[in-house]
Amino acid sequence: MNSRTITFNQQLQSAWTSQASMLCLGFDPDPKRLPLALQGKPDGIFEFCREIADATADLVCSFKPQFAYFASQRAETQLEKLIGYLKDKYPQIPVILDSKRGDIGSTAEHYAQEAFERYGADAVTVNPYMGFDSIEPYLRHQGKGVIVLCRTSNPGGSDLQFLNISPDGEPLYIHVAKLAAQKWNTSGQISLVVGATFPEEIAKVRAIVGEMPLLIPGIGAQGGDIDATVRAGSIVNQPGIGMMINSSRAILYASSGSDFAQAARVVAQTTRDALRDAALI
Amino acid sequence: MNSRTITFNQQLQSAWTSQASMLCLGFDPDPKRLPLALQGKPDGIFEFCREIADATADLVCSFKPQFAYFASQRAETQLEKLIGYLKDKYPQIPVILDSKRGDIGSTAEHYAQEAFERYGADAVTVNPYMGFDSIEPYLRHQGKGVIVLCRTSNPGGSDLQFLNISPDGEPLYIHVAKLAAQKWNTSGQISLVVGATFPEEIAKVRAIVGEMPLLIPGIGAQGGDIDATVRAGSIVNQPGIGMMINSSRAILYASSGSDFAQAARVVAQTTRDALRDAALI
Repeated sequence: MNSRTITFNQQLQSAWTSQASMLCLGFDPDPKRLPLALQGKPDGIFEFCREIADATADLVCSFKPQFAYFASQRAETQLEKLIGYLKDKYPQIPVILDSKRGDIGSTAEHYAQEAFERYGADAVTVNPYMGFDSIEPYLRHQGKGVIVLCRTSNPGGSDLQFLNISPDGEPLYIHVAKLAAQKWNTSGQISLVVGATFPEEIAKVRAIVGEMPLLIPGIGAQGGDIDATVRAGSIVNQPGIGMMINSSRAILYASSGSDFAQAARVVAQTTRDALRDAALI
Repeated sequence: MNSRTITFNQQLQSAWTSQASMLCLGFDPDPKRLPLALQGKPDGIFEFCREIADATADLVCSFKPQFAYFASQRAETQLEKLIGYLKDKYPQIPVILDSKRGDIGSTAEHYAQEAFERYGADAVTVNPYMGFDSIEPYLRHQGKGVIVLCRTSNPGGSDLQFLNISPDGEPLYIHVAKLAAQKWNTSGQISLVVGATFPEEIAKVRAIVGEMPLLIPGIGAQGGDIDATVRAGSIVNQPGIGMMINSSRAILYASSGSDFAQAARVVAQTTRDALRDAALI
């Protein structure tokens, strides 16, 4: 890291304030849901994401491309181009590569290179199942954000994460929150994923992790409640910061017509405003 | 799946018998460790793996390319080419894409497309932390193998996997083995990853999962004991089948000279023989 380069956390703090937004825009470009004019075009995925980014960039605190949607379409080059474009045009907005990596140390170092050097992302999502040595190689990339899955928003999230750990009887996701906030967070680079479908659990995680940023998927298409989420995840006396609340599909596919970017802006603005209003209640 | 297409499990059964081998050859092509003549060549990674595959194909029960080593080098095209080559030239040997994916259902479907349609792999490794709906989309691809992380061979593997779950007090990895063998294994497509660094735990998993195939990393460079591993993972009265015991670096980097493929063959043969001998004890 160049000494003048600001860290992921600094970027995020500054984006929360200057953009007055806790909205994270997720790029899940499903080829079947692109506007007709872009379907099958060689750079269609990039163009789709670029137009939506241009229409919403003043409304978001972060961008989050989802790796799978590019990988299934052989579109790594478009993913490189998208992140390159975002970092060039909107350097103040951090970009999270959502690839949920998790592997042994020697392999994790290659995933870290992929995320931070190849794609130039500011942060990456990772899976805690394989433990600290599967997380540590990312932390060696100074200033980069490492966002650990804690409590996910999907139905199966409870299969493991809600199991009680003896002897304390606390659920696994609470144990992960404690590990991530304390033992693992040697350099302040760690954030956590906590789903909006469980606001009471967001509150428990917030109580453990202090001011650590939380990436919160599950509003929008997944149906999480905005007011409850923002209340649960807020930092005491610091309204309007501390969370990257993600919406992907509800914004991306607001219209399937040629007005898709404007329609995306309308939904993004409504969502950003709802998040801001909820923070000020 | 074409009705004449054999499943991953059938391929594996047949490879164990016809090749008399439980050796899984892992492709972790580290650019810094390629033979000098191949370093920096446009297709160097593919050529390296192809030469080693050609030198060892009669000695293995499966090939396992590790996604990270290709992704960090922008070498997805070489990964496509490698798997295409292996499936074309050695159709009897199943190919496992080791990418340890884990994401919500709608995203997992894209990862399944990536693994099975784009790359043409016969099986993929997946992470259980997000629960059954993160696994289920892969199972919809009939006949494909879905290899779930259970007990991993790295030092941090114990951070979560060895936590005791109340009320039974069994470790998390045992719980995952039970879920994977029973509730989740709706179509017989699931296998498990259990590291060779913990033979007594392999035995516990084997007792739970019956004849389910186990992918066992951790011998070779990671130092797991071959005899103890094979004893622990064997199926009663069926010596020589049931395990894909992986070695990557010890074989790939047996020599850094121009004799790398022959040197890889020597180590692969020694390892295959040691595994076979251990099974016959």
